[in-house]
Amino acid sequence: MLTRIDHVGIACRDLAAATAFYEATFGLTVVSRETNAEQGVREVMLAVSGGPAGASYVQLLEPLGPGTPVGRFLERRGEGVHHVGYAVGDIDAAMAAIGAAGVRLLDSRPRHGSMGASIAFLHPADVGGVLTELVQAPFVPMPKNS
Amino acid sequence: MLTRIDHVGIACRDLAAATAFYEATFGLTVVSRETNAEQGVREVMLAVSGGPAGASYVQLLEPLGPGTPVGRFLERRGEGVHHVGYAVGDIDAAMAAIGAAGVRLLDSRPRHGSMGASIAFLHPADVGGVLTELVQAPFVPMPKNS
Repeated sequence: MLTRIDHVGIACRDLAAATAFYEATFGLTVVSRETNAEQGVREVMLAVSGGPAGASYVQLLEPLGPGTPVGRFLERRGEGVHHVGYAVGDIDAAMAAIGAAGVRLLDSRPRHGSMGASIAFLHPADVGGVLTELVQAPFVPMPKNS
Repeated sequence: MLTRIDHVGIACRDLAAATAFYEATFGLTVVSRETNAEQGVREVMLAVSGGPAGASYVQLLEPLGPGTPVGRFLERRGEGVHHVGYAVGDIDAAMAAIGAAGVRLLDSRPRHGSMGASIAFLHPADVGGVLTELVQAPFVPMPKNS
């Protein structure tokens, strides 16, 4: 069901500084900068690899304010890994199967994620303490019949 | 420098239960079970994808005792993401470059990691709160000249 680690979401206090660090220290390349008002974050996606199965990303997240989910995370835990996003081929089917397995979904239907993706979050208490995100890319990078 | 998200390391209290959860709920497949006495953990690697660029893994970690690094992590933070591992082509070169950039290395030379890999950890305080691992696979999955 999960086809790829799509991204690791990392909460930071200074998006520009964190981005510069990942670029300079690890040689990663920025592929997207977005503000997601619904989620209360400014974010930068840096590509880690670009193989035929699709790239994986480091997603750096800076909260738009202290009352946002990432703002509260920073206050409670400090900077660090906020969530893990996995690619799925069909997010509706994945949400139905995972919900049927007893995992609570934080989203009742897919919503707008980074770079045009459809996303949904799973309750961390039902996934061993890991805030887990399902990500369906807006296009299929590799045809199944090729 | 970083070529792939190799794995997300997740600390858990009950390795068998966590493994069964990731198999049943997310359809992942166990590819390795190891005990690493040096690191004080029992671990299971589950493959998320197997594209030509190499697979990524969920690494579930159960401490061998409360005084181990993962045991202390569980006591302090509870279950959840413990570290992020990135693949590198040449771990010695990566360690030298990253150290020269001012990031403290927790290992002065590569040591034994999962599935025969050579690994080294970076100080989380120098990587925005993320315990970061470099992973050089024991073989090159895709020849550079092909």
